[in-house]
Amino acid sequence: MNATKYASEKYLRYLLPGSLFNSKRTKQILNANPIDDVTRKDAKDIQITVYDYNVGELKEYEFKSIEPTFPFKNNQQNTWINIDGIKKSDIEIIAQHYAIHPLIVEDILSVNQRPKMDEVDEQLYCLLNMLYFNVKDSTVEQEQVSIILGKDYVITFQEDPQRDVFNPIREKLRQSHSKLRQRGADYMCYSLLDLIVDNYFFVMEGLSEKIEQLEDEIIRNSNKRSLAKINQLRKELIVLKRNIAPVRDLIGGIVRSESELLEEGTATYFKDVHDHITQAYDLSENYRDVMLTMQDLYINNVNLKMNEVMKVMAIVTCLLAPATVIGGVFGMNFDVIPTAHNEWGFYMAVGLMLLIIVGMLIMFKRRGWF
Amino acid sequence: MNATKYASEKYLRYLLPGSLFNSKRTKQILNANPIDDVTRKDAKDIQITVYDYNVGELKEYEFKSIEPTFPFKNNQQNTWINIDGIKKSDIEIIAQHYAIHPLIVEDILSVNQRPKMDEVDEQLYCLLNMLYFNVKDSTVEQEQVSIILGKDYVITFQEDPQRDVFNPIREKLRQSHSKLRQRGADYMCYSLLDLIVDNYFFVMEGLSEKIEQLEDEIIRNSNKRSLAKINQLRKELIVLKRNIAPVRDLIGGIVRSESELLEEGTATYFKDVHDHITQAYDLSENYRDVMLTMQDLYINNVNLKMNEVMKVMAIVTCLLAPATVIGGVFGMNFDVIPTAHNEWGFYMAVGLMLLIIVGMLIMFKRRGWF
Amino acid sequence: MNATKYASEKYLRYLLPGSLFNSKRTKQILNANPIDDVTRKDAKDIQITVYDYNVGELKEYEFKSIEPTFPFKNNQQNTWINIDGIKKSDIEIIAQHYAIHPLIVEDILSVNQRPKMDEVDEQLYCLLNMLYFNVKDSTVEQEQVSIILGKDYVITFQEDPQRDVFNPIREKLRQSHSKLRQRGADYMCYSLLDLIVDNYFFVMEGLSEKIEQLEDEIIRNSNKRSLAKINQLRKELIVLKRNIAPVRDLIGGIVRSESELLEEGTATYFKDVHDHITQAYDLSENYRDVMLTMQDLYINNVNLKMNEVMKVMAIVTCLLAPATVIGGVFGMNFDVIPTAHNEWGFYMAVGLMLLIIVGMLIMFKRRGWF
Amino acid sequence: MNATKYASEKYLRYLLPGSLFNSKRTKQILNANPIDDVTRKDAKDIQITVYDYNVGELKEYEFKSIEPTFPFKNNQQNTWINIDGIKKSDIEIIAQHYAIHPLIVEDILSVNQRPKMDEVDEQLYCLLNMLYFNVKDSTVEQEQVSIILGKDYVITFQEDPQRDVFNPIREKLRQSHSKLRQRGADYMCYSLLDLIVDNYFFVMEGLSEKIEQLEDEIIRNSNKRSLAKINQLRKELIVLKRNIAPVRDLIGGIVRSESELLEEGTATYFKDVHDHITQAYDLSENYRDVMLTMQDLYINNVNLKMNEVMKVMAIVTCLLAPATVIGGVFGMNFDVIPTAHNEWGFYMAVGLMLLIIVGMLIMFKRRGWF
Amino acid sequence: MNATKYASEKYLRYLLPGSLFNSKRTKQILNANPIDDVTRKDAKDIQITVYDYNVGELKEYEFKSIEPTFPFKNNQQNTWINIDGIKKSDIEIIAQHYAIHPLIVEDILSVNQRPKMDEVDEQLYCLLNMLYFNVKDSTVEQEQVSIILGKDYVITFQEDPQRDVFNPIREKLRQSHSKLRQRGADYMCYSLLDLIVDNYFFVMEGLSEKIEQLEDEIIRNSNKRSLAKINQLRKELIVLKRNIAPVRDLIGGIVRSESELLEEGTATYFKDVHDHITQAYDLSENYRDVMLTMQDLYINNVNLKMNEVMKVMAIVTCLLAPATVIGGVFGMNFDVIPTAHNEWGFYMAVGLMLLIIVGMLIMFKRRGWF
Repeated sequence: MNATKYASEKYLRYLLPGSLFNSKRTKQILNANPIDDVTRKDAKDIQITVYDYNVGELKEYEFKSIEPTFPFKNNQQNTWINIDGIKKSDIEIIAQHYAIHPLIVEDILSVNQRPKMDEVDEQLYCLLNMLYFNVKDSTVEQEQVSIILGKDYVITFQEDPQRDVFNPIREKLRQSHSKLRQRGADYMCYSLLDLIVDNYFFVMEGLSEKIEQLEDEIIRNSNKRSLAKINQLRKELIVLKRNIAPVRDLIGGIVRSESELLEEGTATYFKDVHDHITQAYDLSENYRDVMLTMQDLYINNVNLKMNEVMKVMAIVTCLLAPATVIGGVFGMNFDVIPTAHNEWGFYMAVGLMLLIIVGMLIMFKRRGWF
Repeated sequence: MNATKYASEKYLRYLLPGSLFNSKRTKQILNANPIDDVTRKDAKDIQITVYDYNVGELKEYEFKSIEPTFPFKNNQQNTWINIDGIKKSDIEIIAQHYAIHPLIVEDILSVNQRPKMDEVDEQLYCLLNMLYFNVKDSTVEQEQVSIILGKDYVITFQEDPQRDVFNPIREKLRQSHSKLRQRGADYMCYSLLDLIVDNYFFVMEGLSEKIEQLEDEIIRNSNKRSLAKINQLRKELIVLKRNIAPVRDLIGGIVRSESELLEEGTATYFKDVHDHITQAYDLSENYRDVMLTMQDLYINNVNLKMNEVMKVMAIVTCLLAPATVIGGVFGMNFDVIPTAHNEWGFYMAVGLMLLIIVGMLIMFKRRGWF
Repeated sequence: MNATKYASEKYLRYLLPGSLFNSKRTKQILNANPIDDVTRKDAKDIQITVYDYNVGELKEYEFKSIEPTFPFKNNQQNTWINIDGIKKSDIEIIAQHYAIHPLIVEDILSVNQRPKMDEVDEQLYCLLNMLYFNVKDSTVEQEQVSIILGKDYVITFQEDPQRDVFNPIREKLRQSHSKLRQRGADYMCYSLLDLIVDNYFFVMEGLSEKIEQLEDEIIRNSNKRSLAKINQLRKELIVLKRNIAPVRDLIGGIVRSESELLEEGTATYFKDVHDHITQAYDLSENYRDVMLTMQDLYINNVNLKMNEVMKVMAIVTCLLAPATVIGGVFGMNFDVIPTAHNEWGFYMAVGLMLLIIVGMLIMFKRRGWF
Repeated sequence: MNATKYASEKYLRYLLPGSLFNSKRTKQILNANPIDDVTRKDAKDIQITVYDYNVGELKEYEFKSIEPTFPFKNNQQNTWINIDGIKKSDIEIIAQHYAIHPLIVEDILSVNQRPKMDEVDEQLYCLLNMLYFNVKDSTVEQEQVSIILGKDYVITFQEDPQRDVFNPIREKLRQSHSKLRQRGADYMCYSLLDLIVDNYFFVMEGLSEKIEQLEDEIIRNSNKRSLAKINQLRKELIVLKRNIAPVRDLIGGIVRSESELLEEGTATYFKDVHDHITQAYDLSENYRDVMLTMQDLYINNVNLKMNEVMKVMAIVTCLLAPATVIGGVFGMNFDVIPTAHNEWGFYMAVGLMLLIIVGMLIMFKRRGWF
Repeated sequence: MNATKYASEKYLRYLLPGSLFNSKRTKQILNANPIDDVTRKDAKDIQITVYDYNVGELKEYEFKSIEPTFPFKNNQQNTWINIDGIKKSDIEIIAQHYAIHPLIVEDILSVNQRPKMDEVDEQLYCLLNMLYFNVKDSTVEQEQVSIILGKDYVITFQEDPQRDVFNPIREKLRQSHSKLRQRGADYMCYSLLDLIVDNYFFVMEGLSEKIEQLEDEIIRNSNKRSLAKINQLRKELIVLKRNIAPVRDLIGGIVRSESELLEEGTATYFKDVHDHITQAYDLSENYRDVMLTMQDLYINNVNLKMNEVMKVMAIVTCLLAPATVIGGVFGMNFDVIPTAHNEWGFYMAVGLMLLIIVGMLIMFKRRGWF
């Protein structure tokens, strides 16, 4: 039994390559437990960059520890503190100095948290995920980003020190005529959110590339992996939508909030991000529709192929069965078989067979079977 | 292997013609990235037409550059400036003169933007798409149109200088007794929106023509292309709905807005456009329903044909199998075969065969297989 | 090829009678363009009836032209002017006298308009469709009705002079003790809406009759037309829902409106119509559910029949195949065939065949194939 | 043809017993016309019970006519008048005395009305259906109940004098320490609604019993009736949901209403009924989900059985076809057949047959077909 | 017949093991009657633990009866009374002392109640279910928990004295520096709700583990139990969602309520629980999606296997049928058979057979059947 099972498994693995049906990915997607604080491992080292700026000047600093960031709190300048890599002890130190609410500290340290926005104690807190599209695995990867907007300062926390997506912001900061320099910390917060949301479109671009390829593949040859790939992309769409929908609420919340941290002129900008995230949401709905259309197409192709196979089989069977019977009839070992001794008997029998075949062919043609 | 694959592909291409399964169209539909500002290419040349009017007189101008449009800003007359073809530098020049917010400039220059409405700095901004139905490809094409309503002036931006859909407006302008001449810039804005929304119905008319043709085709002969065509139309419906739903919100927003740019009497007109776009939305839902009904019909037809093929095959197999066995039995080379030497043996055997066939026919008839 | 295609078409037409798959009906349903004002043809002649009434007396007039209706505008009596047949010129004349807004005139003249309600310039305007069920074609037919409620007068516009559905109202008017006589024009407006909504239930009654017949047919014999009929009814349900849903909004709008045209006591009556239309809406949802249930039933029946055919075929094939082989084995022309010269050889071979058949029968029985 | 059709019908009736596919039940469910007042037949006789009570004493009366109920209107005591059996003339008499609005009278006399709640002229009117589960037919039966709450009195109207579901209320009334006696008429109204809503759970209990039985049946043996039964229960679920959803709105309306008829302390009780009906609504959603799960299960079982039949047939066909060919080859009547005169020829041929069969068996096993 | 049925049942039981299709579980899930107060059996013995605390000190008590809990009502300390095991008489005693509303008492005693929240008489009442995941049966088990928050005290009621999930709370209580000790009774209420909601994630973790296993199994070998297992998990998801959705409303209700029992600073904490339960809700939606994806995958795998079986059968049939006919033709017993006496006749016939087979193989290859 065991050997058979093994063989069958091997066969099925060939039929549906395991790498496509990544059940571990399923678990990753489903097992989003935000409270299990054991899962968060401290980053090995953290990188802190501080940008202290006003219209006139910009000072850049790079630190390896938390303490040097303390003086920027009340220095009358706009300050952006970016912390790359999350270490529980350090977060707690900075939280104490900048008076960050314990619940927000918990959120910063959490894993797999749902995007959310909170306004506590004169600070506006946003938690959301930066998304990346891993072209090789066709997966949507996420990195949790926390943004705290206070009076004159913005603090950001990123999980992965390896990749830092805020470079465009840095470049704009270095240009003294840029809006970023001319406006306050709330505009910095807008810029960060805008960058993250804009990135969602690049992730979707990657997905749409894959969808196009897959559709092309299905059209050319609906093979056994097609549904596997459809299912895989459907799962990644779950990750995508899970991020977009709450971010829409988050930014909608900022737009509606009447926080004193937001200057009047910045509201228009946040409304603009809201338009973008709404479009992203609509688009993700379209992805789902196209996916379903594609699944219908795949199933139809498989069925059409199958139907054709069956039709050919039916036709061949029908055409030859009467001939078999006639052959059998005249092959019977009776003493007296009519026309058996007739010189043209054989030809008459074969002729009868051909006649039936031709007759059936005409009939099938009429019925539109070809 | 390669040759086989090639043959198979060729075969499948015959089965499902590639032009129907346009995966590039899928990418176009899905890849709506509004932020990738590289995609917008400057138009080669732009055409500017200006209509300066009041109840008494209408002056028409045609310019090739932006600057001559400047004097119309505060000239106490109603002015409609229509800019055909989008050139970044020109847009920025006019934006500066007419005090258009930078975010709106960004929107005008954007590509694939979701229809939206904004009210900034005493200007009402609408971005939406003019839709065309390409009868040849059965695709819904879109051209982005931006409308800015200011105090006494309306500025419109169109992408494609080749086709200009605002001709009916021009003709009405030339009639001094028309409402357009008698009322202010807000009525001009209404007229433009009304024209665009009314055009949606013509696009739907084109689509319904195609749907009717397709349904007719499926009824007459559900062939292999039918589902492909259904899928193709489903994708175009996505484009349609993606435009209609946000335009409904957009116009609803204008109706609810209490902008000072809108005179009281014009509200009724905007409410009327809102009724139209709502009907368009309802209708697009109906299209989807009819599409699903058609898909059910197609699948059912395919299955009915298949079932019939199988039934004929089953009947032929069942009818002739016993005869084959009897033929085999009496064809065995035993020395002693009962009735083998009987003069009527052959006829008895053949008679038995016919008897079984007739018996089965009667039974099948009873079971309603015919 | 052509002849074949023709034959195939003929065959399919037999399979799925064209009258059932009325693709023209599809176009009618989908192509609801309310702005194409060319489609409205002027009625040949119009019939105008005027009812001038108060509690004490009722005066009935019948006119062929518009002008005689002018004096009723401010005569301190309740007046109902019913115009049967729509002629553009006449509508414009009466609109001028009764100060009807140009947009409402446009709506009265429109075709395939979505039911709507508007309150402009001290007039309350309702546009909705009277529905009829055409038993012969199983189609839901609609006739556009416009109702204008002004101070002390109601004007109604009907498309088709042939059929007039307001007779019950006329009869009630003639009874001096009826509520209609005792109350104002707003109650007349309520009575008209109530009559139209009540008529929807009769249309549904007609549909439910057809659904019951169809279900009965599917149960008795799921033939090839059943799905066609289901699809046809699904399309009519689209027409039904398209009328009911906006009428619900329309009446809800009247209930919520605080128009001075509506007396306080009449609100309860409008709320009652709202309850009726809500029930109609719920009911139409149920129709859809029953329709889906019926479709599942149909498909299941078709599959069960097919499965049975396949099972019989499988059984017959399996039972007789071994016999064929045995016959073949002993029919081989070898010199030495065991038991060939044995007197009982033939019987042993045939016995073996029967043994296998019986054995298989028992096995199949065990597996529950019968 | 006719005889055949008859036979086929008979056959199908056997396949799908007519009693299961009760198309008349479908019509009953769909044909809910609340305005057709001809359908309401006057009850033969009506039974009136009056309970006149305060904390201290309870007086019970039983009448056969309406008039004796008149004095209870303003007698400073709480009064519950229960009218079993609906007779148009009597309703109108009591309506006049108790100042019931004509529209409410119409509702009381209506048939198949949607549950609704109204507050007119210092009276709160509720119309809803008492549900019963008919275990024999597995149908959900309904009886229309009208409740009028006035100042110090409650009047209830029931359709069917045979079954009276308010007995638990009567028993509580007879206990002087019960809340019913200590509180006012609004609490009586609450008690009646609570009793009716609680009864919905018993109906669901009956349904769940049937669902469990059906699931059990499908697991044990998915026979031809299973889908019929699923469809039947789906239809009853329509009846259930049609009653629960509007009753939720009805009670929600009472909770939100700020009627002076409701004392402050009673609000908590109505909120409690609202919680119950919400749970009933949720539960009815779950029923639908379980139903769909069951349908999937049924279809899967049918397919699994079918697939197995096909697999066995395929295997038998494949195994024996080569043997048939070999038999045929050596059965040909050529003069020269290799090994024909060889002593072991026959055995070699048969051996070859067996070899092929064994080889195929091994191959099939490998592919996991067993 | 009976024996057959028995065999068939036995067969089906083997096909679809009964333990998987637990129809009793279905009944448990569906039959959630909250009003049937007979179902609640009194617990044999109850365990009462009382924690009387402020920042400075904590006193723990353990009682077996209700009366000793009375003095804690107004003792100016925060008190948590936890009652494990529900006995009707005891609940009524404590309700009287602590002035709990009779309706809340009814809810505490109810079974299968929908999670709800009420604010009556200066008490905030929450009823919800603690969920456990039974790994062995893959079922979601629930235990009803009632929480009453009063001025300075919290009373909790649990059904099952065996398992007590509040241990983490106890441990935090014992630490004098914990927030629990520093804050009031409202924070205790928050902590309890937070603990329960956090537990939902552990239940989901268990479910996701099962889903991953199942997906793995379906990928490796889509056997007959897979759909059964999918259906089973779908049912457990019903239980999960039935608990999460109303708890979200419940906590949302607390967040929105402006109860005086909640201190201002605690609102942020309740908002945090609300975020968690919202994420749990989103996640449960994702579970459903993944489940549907898995079902599609399963069905596709079953179909692919089936299609392959059919294809092999079709190919074998087609390849060998012509050979059978040729064998039959030359096996006919005519006197004159062409080439019969030819020395190479046999080889020519066999060669023809092989030729046809090879020709067909090439044709099938071209059509992509391999």
